[in-house]
Amino acid sequence: MDSSKNGDATPLSKSELKARAKGKAVAGVAAPPVAATRGGRGGWKKGVAVFDFLLRLLATGAALAATTTMGTTDQTLPFFTQFFQFQASYDDLPAFTFFVIANAGASAYLVLSLPFSIVCIVRPQAVGPRLLLLIFDTIFVALTTAAASSAAAIVYLAHNGNVNANWLAICRQFNDFCQRVSGAVVASFIAALILIFLVVLSTISLKRS
Amino acid sequence: MDSSKNGDATPLSKSELKARAKGKAVAGVAAPPVAATRGGRGGWKKGVAVFDFLLRLLATGAALAATTTMGTTDQTLPFFTQFFQFQASYDDLPAFTFFVIANAGASAYLVLSLPFSIVCIVRPQAVGPRLLLLIFDTIFVALTTAAASSAAAIVYLAHNGNVNANWLAICRQFNDFCQRVSGAVVASFIAALILIFLVVLSTISLKRS
Repeated sequence: MDSSKNGDATPLSKSELKARAKGKAVAGVAAPPVAATRGGRGGWKKGVAVFDFLLRLLATGAALAATTTMGTTDQTLPFFTQFFQFQASYDDLPAFTFFVIANAGASAYLVLSLPFSIVCIVRPQAVGPRLLLLIFDTIFVALTTAAASSAAAIVYLAHNGNVNANWLAICRQFNDFCQRVSGAVVASFIAALILIFLVVLSTISLKRS
Repeated sequence: MDSSKNGDATPLSKSELKARAKGKAVAGVAAPPVAATRGGRGGWKKGVAVFDFLLRLLATGAALAATTTMGTTDQTLPFFTQFFQFQASYDDLPAFTFFVIANAGASAYLVLSLPFSIVCIVRPQAVGPRLLLLIFDTIFVALTTAAASSAAAIVYLAHNGNVNANWLAICRQFNDFCQRVSGAVVASFIAALILIFLVVLSTISLKRS
């Protein structure tokens, strides 16, 4: 407008041409940045979704390993005393039973969550499935942590005993059992940590900016 | 367009006027809904933020109650045997020591998170503080749950003992101690549950639509 006032009736001056070209360029660029940003954002979110899927597979493996290790561990000592036969399995201690149930539940949930994770890869902008995953992930963070830490408390007691409560360290007898149970607890803690990381990933992915 | 074809050169037909009025109304309404939705969304988010703040206060209370109950519980029985004097406090059992530390940490975090929660009330659209709260809330869900469940495993053992491991139920002697410790565990679980609910609230609040 300013240039048209200066040039009156003369056909488009050089400066006006430049301005128009610039304006056109700006107008032409105006649309693409939105698409580009969206594409970049989508790509970034897709990467996060793929990472989420892989971590979910890893957590499934850890939870399954914890369940099977704890569930199949069984040790019978080759001798017995007047009190009872020394035989140890997970269902001797309620904390270990809870551990098996909770980790089996977490494994089942993680397998069921895989399709939702795939939906998040295919549609990185979808908020619904990500929100659903985040909420259930948080619940299973709590469940897996509860299972792992209650079992850890018992395993610690089995390893070290407690002088004050007069509880003996049963791991001196059931060494093999304790080793395997400790492994299961570590696997469950790994699953819980991966789930926490998944929650953080989902949170970052939910952020729009 | 259809009405202009029917009416040819006649000045605006009734149906066309109606259509134009409708079009104008639609165009005129097009802008306000954005502002209205934004205002509604802001108000809705502000409500969630206020609820978040109140729940955070409640969780602080629960975590503090758990810490102090567990930390101050101390019972000495009026008799002793040839083995040891019967005296029970939280530092006799590592799980209870962890419980006190973790719940004290959670209380400190919850108090420190209150200003961020206030920021979320003042600026309901702010994503940064909400994101920060969500991530740390998740970490403290895990910590509080771990503390509560490991202590619960030990309390269960103290109440019921375990025949297989030959661990005796010490609560028969330390009844008062066990009662208070159980209360502390329940308070810690309540804090963990509120934290989970806070995570879910933050997630819903992060959703834009």
